[in-house]
Order: sequence, then structure tokens, then C-alpha cells
Amino acid sequence: MDKKFMLRAVDLALNGKGKVSPNPLVGSVIVKNGSIIGEGFHGFYGDSHAEINALNSCTESPKGGTLYCNLEPCSTSYPGKINPPCCEAIIKAEIKRVVIGQIDPNPMVSGAGINILKAAGIGVITGIELEECLKLNTGFNCVMLNNRPFVHLKWAQTLDGRIASKNGESKWITNLDCRIDSHLHRSNSDSILVGTKTLINDNPTLTTRYGFAPSPRPIILSKEITGTSNLEVCKNNPLYLNYSHNTNPPISKILEDIKKEGLNSVFVEGGASLITSFLNSNLWDRITVYTAPRILGEGLNSVGDLNILHPDSSITFSRTEIRIIDNHIIFNGWNKGSFLCLQD
Amino acid sequence: MDKKFMLRAVDLALNGKGKVSPNPLVGSVIVKNGSIIGEGFHGFYGDSHAEINALNSCTESPKGGTLYCNLEPCSTSYPGKINPPCCEAIIKAEIKRVVIGQIDPNPMVSGAGINILKAAGIGVITGIELEECLKLNTGFNCVMLNNRPFVHLKWAQTLDGRIASKNGESKWITNLDCRIDSHLHRSNSDSILVGTKTLINDNPTLTTRYGFAPSPRPIILSKEITGTSNLEVCKNNPLYLNYSHNTNPPISKILEDIKKEGLNSVFVEGGASLITSFLNSNLWDRITVYTAPRILGEGLNSVGDLNILHPDSSITFSRTEIRIIDNHIIFNGWNKGSFLCLQD
Repeated sequence: MDKKFMLRAVDLALNGKGKVSPNPLVGSVIVKNGSIIGEGFHGFYGDSHAEINALNSCTESPKGGTLYCNLEPCSTSYPGKINPPCCEAIIKAEIKRVVIGQIDPNPMVSGAGINILKAAGIGVITGIELEECLKLNTGFNCVMLNNRPFVHLKWAQTLDGRIASKNGESKWITNLDCRIDSHLHRSNSDSILVGTKTLINDNPTLTTRYGFAPSPRPIILSKEITGTSNLEVCKNNPLYLNYSHNTNPPISKILEDIKKEGLNSVFVEGGASLITSFLNSNLWDRITVYTAPRILGEGLNSVGDLNILHPDSSITFSRTEIRIIDNHIIFNGWNKGSFLCLQD
Repeated sequence: MDKKFMLRAVDLALNGKGKVSPNPLVGSVIVKNGSIIGEGFHGFYGDSHAEINALNSCTESPKGGTLYCNLEPCSTSYPGKINPPCCEAIIKAEIKRVVIGQIDPNPMVSGAGINILKAAGIGVITGIELEECLKLNTGFNCVMLNNRPFVHLKWAQTLDGRIASKNGESKWITNLDCRIDSHLHRSNSDSILVGTKTLINDNPTLTTRYGFAPSPRPIILSKEITGTSNLEVCKNNPLYLNYSHNTNPPISKILEDIKKEGLNSVFVEGGASLITSFLNSNLWDRITVYTAPRILGEGLNSVGDLNILHPDSSITFSRTEIRIIDNHIIFNGWNKGSFLCLQD
């Protein structure tokens, strides 16, 4: 039963998708005598926490009940926040048992909430549906553990590894199924980045479509593109990052600036030169490659020079996941050096 | 029950693998009262046919029985052959019913055997386990229908479409599972061809290993490589094809010469330049691509210039088959213009 109620908490947490970043998505359920008597989620950045909302929604007294939460309840109040720490509220409500998915990844507070609850005589268990809980907050977890946004690289190629024909045509190499899958990833990312050449040549909207939401915030790296540009992305509140002294800013600096804006994750959709920079920096977490059942021959390669001289030294993955959809191959690989290799 | 006995005939036919080319693989089973009373197969080139061997092996009179055969029995005697046409022998043995997998693909005699049997009052049915029967004789069928050997292209690449690092290292990009799979294909091919650069640089044996047999006959295109060479392939009775007036002989001429040697199929294992020539000629039937879960960046591309300017014009397939083995992708695609798209 614990699993069932935790999955309900995860479902509730998703209501905050696109609205709470850089906070994590959190949902909470309160159960008494086997029935749900209260539910809540963190609805938008700055608003009250999921546990408080769940307690406030109870249809009967939560006293003696069990509280489910995908993330460890907070132990300290944050400046300017409207509510007391969740642990305090849980203790006050005389909750008997707390079931936690993921322990807080913030090394400064990790485990503190659990200790407070236990000291108050509350039974605490953790790790229920851990994988689902980790996936829910990939970006947040990455920022906490790696001090940079989660980086998800993506490209679409032919069977022979080309992302465009020799005169630059890339529409369309893969099919609609692949594009739909990539829009799911867009909706799971706080921000989206493409190379300047792609921005200018293709003039993409970079919004999330095909029924998914929300759209990630577009990031513009070029000094040449400003708010007065007619490019589609400029209509969607882009983040302009200008590096006046550097034509090719280091990836680490770009990621630092993305994080500063409260964006926990970035989806990088090419082109090859930007993808190659991320691979060379080894500052990436996940790669998704869509491969179409077609051969193009001479054309633009998916990846440029990585200074790798032997196949043994090539980039391999900690985990891979390969799916076939309508003869197209969807390859997912996670970085060996990445703490958290889970995201859907 | 017809299917079961036909599959037994297919099994028997495989006893001739590597020994009957350019003849087809043929097996035959004779059944009476639901039990097998005789079995035979075509054992080596020039020897008696499967049906004759099956009739001769009967443990009781075949009179009134059913004969199963993966290929239509022959209607005419061929010069220098030791036996009468199979149809004649079947009629003489007073077989009551003949079950055929595949009709003879040779347009000169296709259907003639069936007509003779029917005229003699024998019940004939065809098309039982047709797919298995077609696959059994892919090379023979291709020669009969396309007047050239079956061409199977193969390469192994990284996720980003590289077959070697920028300084030419290719050992090993894919894993043992992929190499085992490719040795199955070697054993199913009458001949094997690699580019001259690969022959000289890698000095491969091109034999069939990992428990499969037989080895295909190696083909050598280079004038520089003769019988006195120390290359490994020269130990295995290679077919030397020298085109003195042409440094780059047309693929059609190479295939004509391979067919002249009684070789019904050729497995082309690269390199990129030879693969590209075959793709440009559109004289190929099947492509197998092994993709490893690794990224190499700058390196040798799997396919060279095909003069394709738009993704819409890229090479696509009549049928594809994709398998995942230990995170490696085995892609099979069949040519849209190929008559027979079946081979395992």
C-alpha cells in the first residue's frame, strides 16, 4: 500500500511541472485507516509546500495518520517563506508515520528532516518508489549534487550518422514518433538550447507541442540576436547570455549562468558543433539519439572532433535504454560520471 | 502436419550447405500413414537430387505416399547428370501427393514439374512454409531472378556512424555478440569481399568461426595481391578478379564474374569505399549494420558520397528488422528493388 500512496504523491507533484523551478516537484498524501484523507502539492515557486497543503486539505483530523511525500520534508524555514518548516507542522498535526521517497539531496540539510521527525517519536521509512521519485526531480537533484543544471543532449540522424544532407537539409530525417518523443523531453526541461547557426537557419520556435507542456525557456548564446530580432524564439522570453570577451564561452560558464537563472535543466538540440562542445567538456548527463532507417552518405556528421584516437577510448555509458518505434531507433545513454542517471 | 514435414525437409536441405552451390539446397521427406518412411537431401554439387535420395531411402514402398520437397521437383534431365528427372521418378514410385515449398524460380522451367506431376494424376500443393523455403536459397533465387549473386552489405559502427577512429583503429567497435552474428552471415554466403585497403591493413582471414560453417570463398579485387602473397586470405582458395584496364571496375562486372564462378551470393564487409560503390550502383539486396553504444567523434564515416542532396532522397528499405543485443543494435534492411528480401 505504501507504494500505491507514494505513486499518488508523485502524480500530485507533477501538477507543479514548469511552475516551481528551481524548487523540486513535491506531492503529499495523508492516509488514515487505509483511506486518503488529504492531498497536496507544491503549486508554484514561493507558494506553500506540499505537506502543508496536504495537512490543510484533510477531511478529518490527521492525528495518528500516515503522511506520504516523494521528498524528505524540510526541517528549517527559509527566509521570506509563508509557512513554518514542514517537519514542525507534521509533528504538530500528530502524524504517526511518515513515508518518504527520496532523502533531500541538498548536502546541507539531507537527513535533518528525518532526524527531527524521529526525535518526535514519528516512525519514518524512506526509499519507497525511489526511482520514480528521483526521476521526478532530475534537474533539481543534479543542481544539488553537481552544482550545475542537468544537461540532456539530443539529435536526430540517419543510420549512417548524418544529421543533415551535404547542403544542410535536415527536414525530416526521422519520423513523427521521434519528434513527439523529443517534445516530451522538452516539456521535462526547464530550458532549451540550440546552436546559433540552427537558430538562424531553421528559425525554430523551440516550444513544446504534440499535447505536452510546458515549453522550456529558450536560451540564446549569440550576441547578434537581441530582443529586437524577428526570430521565433525571441517571442518566448528567452534568456540572453552574452559573453562579450569570449566568442566560444566555456560550457561550464554557460551552465553556471543557466543555473543562476533558476533553471535546473537544459535540453540541447544541436547542432553538431554545440553537441561536440558539450561532449568535449564532459558536462552532460543524458544523450538521446533518434536514428532513422535511411542512409544519406556524405553529409553533416552528428558529432565532430572529440580527439579520440582509439575505439577503446570512445564515450560509453553507465546505462543505456534502446527502443524501436516504427523502425526508428530511440537510443538513450547516461553519463558514467553523472550522479543521477534517471529521467524520463 | 504438412508444415511439420516441410520444415523437416528444410532441415535436411541444410546438410548440403556450402557443398551444392550454384545448385539450390534441397531436402525431401516421404510420408505414409502419418510417418516418415524416407528422407533425402542434395548432398553435393553433381550428386543425385534430394527426391531421388528420399525415394531410395524408403523403408517400405513409397506407393500411395506423400512426398515433401522445399523446391519444385525438376522436370528435365540435365546433361551429364546421373539420374532421371525427379518428376519421372516420383511418378514411377506411384507417389499420391506432392507438397512443395517454393516453385522453381528459374523462369525457363518454373511450374513445369508441377504440370507433369498433375498430368500424372498426382495431387500437388505449393507454398507450404514458403518463407522458410525462400530463405534457404536466397542466393540461388537471386541468381535466377536477378541474374546476379545476392549482395549482402555489412558494417560495424559507433552510435555516431564511424567505422574507425581518425587514425584508422577499428578493433573493436562492436562486441562479440555482433561478431558472432556476422559469422552466421559469413556461413550463409558463398563468397566474401572486402576492400583492398582493409585486406592489406587488417590482413583478415575472412573465415567463418564461432561454431558456424562453412567459410565463404574470399574474393580479391586487387592486381597487387597474387597467389604469392602472404596475406591470410590467400591460403583459402581466393577468387582473383583482375581488371587490367580498369582500376575501379563497375560493380556489375564484379558481380558478373562472381556469378560465373558458380557463387550465388557475396557478403561485403567493407570498407566504406567499397560499400559506397555498391550503394551507388544499387546492386545490393540486404544491409546489416551493427551499432555499438559508444561515440567516437571525428573518424571514418560508414558511408561515403552518394550524391544525395535531401533526406527525402536517402536510401530507404522495403523491410527492416532491428534487434538489440547487450545494448548493441543489429539493423537489417532490404533493398526496395530486390526481388527476394528474405535471408537469415
